[in-house]
Amino acid sequence: MSVKFEKNVLGRLVPNLVNGKIQIPFQGVGKHLPKGNKYGAPIVSCADFPADGNKIVPNLQEALLKAGLRNGAVISTHHHFRNGDLLAVQIFDIAHSLGFKDLVWFPSASFECHQPLINYLEDGTIHHIEGSMNGSLGRFASEGKMKGMGVLRSHGGRHQAIQDGEIVIDIAVIAAPTADAFGNATGDRGSAACGLLGFALADSQYATKVIVATDNIVPFPCVPWQIQGNNVDFVVVLDQIGIPEKIVSGTTEITKSPDRLLLAEMTAQFCDEAGIIHDGFSFQAGAGGTALSIGVYFAEMLRKRGMNARFARGGSNKYLVKMLEEGLLDYILDGQTFDLEGVRSMRENKGHVNTSPFTSYNYHGKGNFASMLDVVVLGATEVDLNFNANVVTHSDGILLHGVGGWQNCLFAKCTILPIPLFRDRIPVIRDEVTTICGPGELIDVIVTERGIAINPMRTDLLDKLKYSNLPIKTMQQLKEEVDAICGVPEKPMFTNNPIAVVKWVDGTVIDTVWEVDNTEK
Amino acid sequence: MSVKFEKNVLGRLVPNLVNGKIQIPFQGVGKHLPKGNKYGAPIVSCADFPADGNKIVPNLQEALLKAGLRNGAVISTHHHFRNGDLLAVQIFDIAHSLGFKDLVWFPSASFECHQPLINYLEDGTIHHIEGSMNGSLGRFASEGKMKGMGVLRSHGGRHQAIQDGEIVIDIAVIAAPTADAFGNATGDRGSAACGLLGFALADSQYATKVIVATDNIVPFPCVPWQIQGNNVDFVVVLDQIGIPEKIVSGTTEITKSPDRLLLAEMTAQFCDEAGIIHDGFSFQAGAGGTALSIGVYFAEMLRKRGMNARFARGGSNKYLVKMLEEGLLDYILDGQTFDLEGVRSMRENKGHVNTSPFTSYNYHGKGNFASMLDVVVLGATEVDLNFNANVVTHSDGILLHGVGGWQNCLFAKCTILPIPLFRDRIPVIRDEVTTICGPGELIDVIVTERGIAINPMRTDLLDKLKYSNLPIKTMQQLKEEVDAICGVPEKPMFTNNPIAVVKWVDGTVIDTVWEVDNTEK
Repeated sequence: MSVKFEKNVLGRLVPNLVNGKIQIPFQGVGKHLPKGNKYGAPIVSCADFPADGNKIVPNLQEALLKAGLRNGAVISTHHHFRNGDLLAVQIFDIAHSLGFKDLVWFPSASFECHQPLINYLEDGTIHHIEGSMNGSLGRFASEGKMKGMGVLRSHGGRHQAIQDGEIVIDIAVIAAPTADAFGNATGDRGSAACGLLGFALADSQYATKVIVATDNIVPFPCVPWQIQGNNVDFVVVLDQIGIPEKIVSGTTEITKSPDRLLLAEMTAQFCDEAGIIHDGFSFQAGAGGTALSIGVYFAEMLRKRGMNARFARGGSNKYLVKMLEEGLLDYILDGQTFDLEGVRSMRENKGHVNTSPFTSYNYHGKGNFASMLDVVVLGATEVDLNFNANVVTHSDGILLHGVGGWQNCLFAKCTILPIPLFRDRIPVIRDEVTTICGPGELIDVIVTERGIAINPMRTDLLDKLKYSNLPIKTMQQLKEEVDAICGVPEKPMFTNNPIAVVKWVDGTVIDTVWEVDNTEK
Repeated sequence: MSVKFEKNVLGRLVPNLVNGKIQIPFQGVGKHLPKGNKYGAPIVSCADFPADGNKIVPNLQEALLKAGLRNGAVISTHHHFRNGDLLAVQIFDIAHSLGFKDLVWFPSASFECHQPLINYLEDGTIHHIEGSMNGSLGRFASEGKMKGMGVLRSHGGRHQAIQDGEIVIDIAVIAAPTADAFGNATGDRGSAACGLLGFALADSQYATKVIVATDNIVPFPCVPWQIQGNNVDFVVVLDQIGIPEKIVSGTTEITKSPDRLLLAEMTAQFCDEAGIIHDGFSFQAGAGGTALSIGVYFAEMLRKRGMNARFARGGSNKYLVKMLEEGLLDYILDGQTFDLEGVRSMRENKGHVNTSPFTSYNYHGKGNFASMLDVVVLGATEVDLNFNANVVTHSDGILLHGVGGWQNCLFAKCTILPIPLFRDRIPVIRDEVTTICGPGELIDVIVTERGIAINPMRTDLLDKLKYSNLPIKTMQQLKEEVDAICGVPEKPMFTNNPIAVVKWVDGTVIDTVWEVDNTEK
């Protein structure tokens, strides 16, 4: 079957086949209704597992071989160690040394530390990456050098794809800061503590074989068990599974940039005037200096008014932990910890709850947490006049970021993107974004340093802000202002070779990422 | 297809069809290896669920109708409220008033409070009970009055059957002491607090529709969430879901009977001489005055020797909680709380961990906790000369008990049954038990008031106890002693009508329960 392209409802050209698998074009938000039953992993028997619960094998190579490593196998890893991960490269080093080919790497996210995998993409050890390709890996793919096509999914979309059997994981390798010989594992303690292991939860439940690798083995039972040994085949004890100082990398301090502080302040004030900040409200701001600053503004408002927030969704950080401990916040529902205070709090505080893409983001569930949030604050690389937004490619067309939880979070009651009007003199507001990752109907507000645009669909917000002193403008006005400063930007040039697709939260294809044909310019 | 009977490896006559479903005869411990994949519930979409997370419907009837109640539907409930359950009868009252027929009730266990359901078994509202039938319900079935056949499973076997798709639950109704409108639910707080909800976990994950009924609704998020709202379709708020004083019913005090105390002391001493009581050992004793007393003996030994146990499996009770709080025990891995101290401890103590039949007992998992225990102490209604034991029928042939976790626990490193040699002048040791629930190869030691029999397969235990002062005898000797006292008992009389089957932990049929033909004598 040869690949054909058709336009989806957003007018984006998408392929009907990706790596040989049939695709459904994006149908509109909530329009694609799934059929069939969830995937079930192969049934196993305790008769095939050690009665004493000791599943330790001598090393990772033996575990991979016992798990049935073969050409073409799908191998998954999680990204709770972020840029401090030491495992993914090791796995493919072993696969390469054993001569396996055409493997699929299915990470929950990738980081710059995974750059060595480019060698294995080049020599055929890895066929393609089914997951985010950041930095070097994204650039490699954008240059058309990856054998297969990339498949970019949100965190929730990854759960959906696993659950619905769109991808079957042959071997999940779960790096665990603490584990017992049975395979019970937790992320909240150990020298490589990363807080939680929620991104690996679906992998543990649905993969055919599951390997837990740890550098801190404890006697049964490992409590808490974020990953259940009942789903684990083999346990490997390594010297080190992650570099602690890189595990909780990323921005961990509020911004000192006056531009960003302005965006943060305007966003917080917008929320206040829109009536979003009320006793018992909920929010998610994520990492990054601007987002952290917004949280601090929220905290100040609550403190002054004697109110508190019912819950915040993490990425947790020391600012959220402080709110929790001060009583300004009842619960942190945390998907990943961004600093060591987050790890400590998750270990110590019953109000700091570990969640997973299943609870927070899975669109093929009976609801999820994301749509219950009063407000979510997110970033974007580009936004168009219809509020469609991009988070994976830059305006030069190069793939540089993953989707993360971004698509899933758009379902909040109010989605706000505080973004600069331009970056390096390249406008962020465009006639058309390079890659649509989120449909405009779900994006409510754009906050820029020169004005705030409210989605015309949100007449309620337009009404509430009618007499505001905030600079409420239309998207068209903002675009004219930025074009006046930067000039109308050139569009990036692409070949007609698709290098990746972006999935929507329901498994349909929302857009295609194309090979850039000016990479060397 | 007509029902045929064949003998399984234990020589017991079992049917090839039960309620129209094909059966596999018991093949021996660990001999039946399953094929295929686990069952997956229908895929759903958040598009069909309220974005604000509010799934409350006005009443149970509306919830059942929205959930698609129909003739022949399989409806599940859990038994954490034990004899204080108020929900199961209500469900079938509603079904009856609406005229539905041929329903299957799939409880995790039944109690005397469910006796009113006999009316619905008689009038055709309920076709059969797929689960334990205690007391009145068991007697009703034994008299051949139930339309369909009963299917008795262990707690682990129930999980296995759900997971493997041997039974598909149409509607799970989960009574929850505390819940939020999204369906997150916990058993550790609220006026009907029962500790945990582990018996309902599989139901929540695999049922087509899931209803949470609570009498204590809290704002989202209900933390902890033992049941996840992401699996829940509807939430119903009722005035009362259980009778608190009956929820934690059962024996909660150590025995004062000299006979039972003797059994407890002999059992504890046996464990000591067999080298089972060591620093870091693990045990499960369960409820009942004798079992509680054994725990107290264990505690005394540990305290005297400055040792501690690594974990105990509950049913938890105040004696285990005391050990935990005193530091004689690192962890309680709890399947159900038997008293209010257990509930309090589970709520307060991170070392008191809630488990489920999946973690503890499921034989079609990658190991489970039961086989890791150093010793388990269980009861039995009858034991035969080959150590095969019965827990569901009495020697008069009448079905009076469920299997519970009994079969699953047999996989412990040492399984001990402390039992009286006779009850009401009826011998407990028989040539052949009325119903085989557990094969003798898994039962290691029988402790009676007149002697201890060690399974000849356990040459290691025989060696260790060679010079013991304990009265070590053979099973044959014990049988001769009891027959000398009571006379050789008559066998019960049965018709050739099977009224239920007993499943082994792997889903095969280990024995058949027959209609008694002397019920009216």
